Amino acid sequence: MATTATTTSPADHAYRVCLIGSGGVGTIASLVLSKSRQAHVTAVLRSKFQYVSEHGWDIESIDHGTLQGWKPHRVVGSAAEAAVEDGKKVEFDYVVVCTKQLPDRNPVAPMIEPIMTAGRTTVVLIQNGIGIEDEIVAAWPTNTVMSSVSHIGSGIEEPNKVVQVGKDVSKMGVHYGPSSVVASTESSTSESGAEAEKTNVEKRAKAEAFVSMYNAGGAHICELVDDIEAARWEKLLWNGTFNTVCALTRSDVGEIQRSKGRETLLLPMMWEIWHIAEASGHALPDTIVQWMAYRLPDDCAYRASMLLDLENSRPMELEVILGNPLKVAKRLGVATPVMDVVYKLLQVEAWKIEQQGKK
Amino acid sequence: MATTATTTSPADHAYRVCLIGSGGVGTIASLVLSKSRQAHVTAVLRSKFQYVSEHGWDIESIDHGTLQGWKPHRVVGSAAEAAVEDGKKVEFDYVVVCTKQLPDRNPVAPMIEPIMTAGRTTVVLIQNGIGIEDEIVAAWPTNTVMSSVSHIGSGIEEPNKVVQVGKDVSKMGVHYGPSSVVASTESSTSESGAEAEKTNVEKRAKAEAFVSMYNAGGAHICELVDDIEAARWEKLLWNGTFNTVCALTRSDVGEIQRSKGRETLLLPMMWEIWHIAEASGHALPDTIVQWMAYRLPDDCAYRASMLLDLENSRPMELEVILGNPLKVAKRLGVATPVMDVVYKLLQVEAWKIEQQGKK
Repeated sequence: MATTATTTSPADHAYRVCLIGSGGVGTIASLVLSKSRQAHVTAVLRSKFQYVSEHGWDIESIDHGTLQGWKPHRVVGSAAEAAVEDGKKVEFDYVVVCTKQLPDRNPVAPMIEPIMTAGRTTVVLIQNGIGIEDEIVAAWPTNTVMSSVSHIGSGIEEPNKVVQVGKDVSKMGVHYGPSSVVASTESSTSESGAEAEKTNVEKRAKAEAFVSMYNAGGAHICELVDDIEAARWEKLLWNGTFNTVCALTRSDVGEIQRSKGRETLLLPMMWEIWHIAEASGHALPDTIVQWMAYRLPDDCAYRASMLLDLENSRPMELEVILGNPLKVAKRLGVATPVMDVVYKLLQVEAWKIEQQGKK
Repeated sequence: MATTATTTSPADHAYRVCLIGSGGVGTIASLVLSKSRQAHVTAVLRSKFQYVSEHGWDIESIDHGTLQGWKPHRVVGSAAEAAVEDGKKVEFDYVVVCTKQLPDRNPVAPMIEPIMTAGRTTVVLIQNGIGIEDEIVAAWPTNTVMSSVSHIGSGIEEPNKVVQVGKDVSKMGVHYGPSSVVASTESSTSESGAEAEKTNVEKRAKAEAFVSMYNAGGAHICELVDDIEAARWEKLLWNGTFNTVCALTRSDVGEIQRSKGRETLLLPMMWEIWHIAEASGHALPDTIVQWMAYRLPDDCAYRASMLLDLENSRPMELEVILGNPLKVAKRLGVATPVMDVVYKLLQVEAWKIEQQGKK
């Protein structure tokens, strides 16, 4: 077991990795990390534990081919179970979180608490949204927090099949803080400049090791970037606009485009997001909005994830996709007239989904 | 046949009335006018002509009791047919329009053109929305145009049953112009003050005669008001808010209220409408917003008409309910951030409904 995460040529299965959230994204991540031979991977499964621990996963992957009954090194039914092996507390180097981002319903910090070692375990959030690092930083202020912006296309077919149709392309990077959601003064630390510099070098090394491992495992492209927040805002140009408006209007991508909703709603919303990103110190190129708005054809029948959630009365990732960005906008004085209304309308939908869940 | 509409005690069936649009509202109006004994009523039916001309209407009405196979004096299949009787052009005193307000798809002026006599026929619009008088004034500038704000609850059960559950309560009044939608300078006339005054007295007399007839026919309450525009804006406080947001979020009234959508969306929209009304010279009382927002109980399962239209892929009255009020707001410089976005979202829904219709 590695005692430091900065090792550049780790021994076989040197890193202890615990992965939580085994949907389409998480299961491929567990496969990639296992294939790297640098990690011993424990996967925490909840609803699927019984079936998968018996049958494994059947995987059809554009990156990894076909696998039958595949399992990571260890499959457990809870984080508490993952935390103990042979009667001893496991000290994980990395905890990789691939769950849906539902801070009100299923916050990440309590979920991973049993598998965290303060000052040691690096948290890797492969999740959507803005401001998702805050609760981790608050709970473990000296640990490294990274996040990934993934463009993989991968889903689950019941009960245990993973179909990955879109290549595993992602950006990863360290969250250096301060928080983008709460006022930055609250997040300032008492570290001196030199100490902070040293800490950041260590954080960066942990991220480098993880990205190196992820690429060694056969991911299509995993890029380590200096400003992962900018990449998160860039992805929000899609998730905060197409995803939300398609959900609200029960439209596929092509319908929004052909109806001119792209021009009346999505472009104004994209510029609102662009301006929040700029005001928060993560300026995106001017050209990105046009590219993001016009990259898909007008007959694109893609149904966004939030639309599928809404149609199936599943909780939507509304708070991290619109709620948190709007908090940032408010703090920084950025006008968001369209996002405001779309958010409030989707809050009505979220309330209805919550009522469904209570039945 | 009456030669002047100002007669206060008209002979039996003195007024020639043509009514177009026989849904729940229009059929009860044709019954009321027939029962008044002051009007000879011709009803123009389109899809229902064949069945109703043979079987009549079966009516269950809170105001009028139960009627089997009831028909107005004359039932015809088109306005062109209504216009000619015994080989002669009929000169109608009143044309009553109870169709759905769909200016792009089914404008009223061409629809009633065959049954209009310039300078004579008074048009009575029993319809939703703002700015609906403009096309009539443009086509027949010397005719009287009235409108009605109706709170009747009445609907059709196929093929020929009318069920009226809510009493026939309405306000009626003369549209004196100028247009609220287009700039008022375009509508100014060259009449002198005295001439305009005389014209307005004549218009008012025609409205009085119609309201008197409507009350004589057993409507629950029909009130003649000086400022019918104010009554139209007041009804828009409901139609522009509950109706539109319930449609967009597929919610009944209670769901919007319990989800707090009333506070986040409807109240801001109501104040936007209140301010447009004020800016256009039809100030409403301050207390009306609170009353309109909180008059229904939180378990109210009422499904608004626009929601029913949307769910059944029928055209929605979006342009007269939000499109025209937003034109007025723009002309008068009233801020409408919430209405703007709700309108644009419903335009996407309207486009989808239109595509359905093309299949």
